[in-house]
Amino acid sequence: MKPITVMKIGGNVIDDPEALKAFLREFAAVKGPKILIHGGGKLATRMAERLELQVQMVDGRRITDKGMLDVVTMVYAGLVNKQIVAGLQAAGCNAIGLSGADANVVTARRRDPHPIDFGFVGDIERVDSERLGSLLKSGLVPVFSAIMHDGHGTLLNCNADSVASAVALGAATIAPTDLVFCFEKAGVLLNPDDEKSVIPEITAESYARLKDDGTVSKGMIPKIENALKAVEQGVRSVTIRHSKALDNGIGTVIR
Amino acid sequence: MKPITVMKIGGNVIDDPEALKAFLREFAAVKGPKILIHGGGKLATRMAERLELQVQMVDGRRITDKGMLDVVTMVYAGLVNKQIVAGLQAAGCNAIGLSGADANVVTARRRDPHPIDFGFVGDIERVDSERLGSLLKSGLVPVFSAIMHDGHGTLLNCNADSVASAVALGAATIAPTDLVFCFEKAGVLLNPDDEKSVIPEITAESYARLKDDGTVSKGMIPKIENALKAVEQGVRSVTIRHSKALDNGIGTVIR
Repeated sequence: MKPITVMKIGGNVIDDPEALKAFLREFAAVKGPKILIHGGGKLATRMAERLELQVQMVDGRRITDKGMLDVVTMVYAGLVNKQIVAGLQAAGCNAIGLSGADANVVTARRRDPHPIDFGFVGDIERVDSERLGSLLKSGLVPVFSAIMHDGHGTLLNCNADSVASAVALGAATIAPTDLVFCFEKAGVLLNPDDEKSVIPEITAESYARLKDDGTVSKGMIPKIENALKAVEQGVRSVTIRHSKALDNGIGTVIR
Repeated sequence: MKPITVMKIGGNVIDDPEALKAFLREFAAVKGPKILIHGGGKLATRMAERLELQVQMVDGRRITDKGMLDVVTMVYAGLVNKQIVAGLQAAGCNAIGLSGADANVVTARRRDPHPIDFGFVGDIERVDSERLGSLLKSGLVPVFSAIMHDGHGTLLNCNADSVASAVALGAATIAPTDLVFCFEKAGVLLNPDDEKSVIPEITAESYARLKDDGTVSKGMIPKIENALKAVEQGVRSVTIRHSKALDNGIGTVIR
């Protein structure tokens, strides 16, 4: 199979209808087999507020109780996923929306409740690469929300970045795979206030220096470390870039 | 391909967790290629109330404005669909949840706004039997919500009975197809107060008599006429029965 592109978008695209439209057009035009992973943005939080659910947070992280699980399932696997799929279909891209439960393509394990019980939050356990490959071979473009399942009937809310990495690693067992994380900046920046200061390439060696001298800021550390890990485990390249690449350059490539 | 079973469940199963669990176990045990279609029950109405949306009704029918379309997409294509898929996976049935937009498998046309504008309500236009066949051949069990799309980026709320009939007709072009409508009664009853008075078989001829003498009541008329039409157009049989067939017999068969 030809090289596979796996792209991940987050709240900055999903919460902005114009940005989403522009992104979907760009994604539809990507050549070759491809996969999209989306987070849910602020919609789930807003929906929980409208439903007057109490959002519990511990250490700045949302606790997913049963009420919140239902909300993220509705918003991420329902509303956002189907709107993206319908938008891609309109752009001539044969998308198929998937949660992990669909075709049992990704299973997750509920996170250990000690020391903090995050509720219905899961970590990816297994990606069915064979099924993924057969969907791609039949000309379909999988579009994943971050709602997975444990295989025993329970849905689990996962981190969309981790889903993207896991799916890319699964894809990498079928064909060379490039993973692209889209976010609100043009890439990893030398100077956080200068969008033109994108670092074109990061390797394990250069990352050690960037971390030592403080260039890489707090929020970027897990992103880059995940990327380096994905590359180490078999993904051909990871790119961190703006969701609107045409206006914002090609971003930072991690090899 | 072996004969295909298409089953449809509605609110009486979906709104009752125990009934749903029992049904999914039964459905998982059905041999051969199969497809499930589900409505959404009262959950969408309850959700709209909690969100304080004004539910508009005309002639006893809900108008699907944009707010309501988002709610039915969340509830039917998100929450209900993914819970059913996860439940079937737990029962060893390799389900894949689909809206019409997914893999572009069913398209609908927005209903003529004259004389009544029902909003984002659609009527089925086309079922991609080839795609349906290839999903079945690969061992998957499609699970449809009644949310379809127009192919131009707009999602449309459809009638789940009509989706079931259209999908069964699509399946019938691949292999002999039996369509089963599950509802809250044991079948078409001679005496509406006697669950034991199930009419075992209805044909076009016997239906004409049952309608003439008033045995078939108001709500059953569209159900039976849809069933007769499906049989006429190529579905091998249509059964109208209780969702819990084991306790309630085999229902009424329309041939």
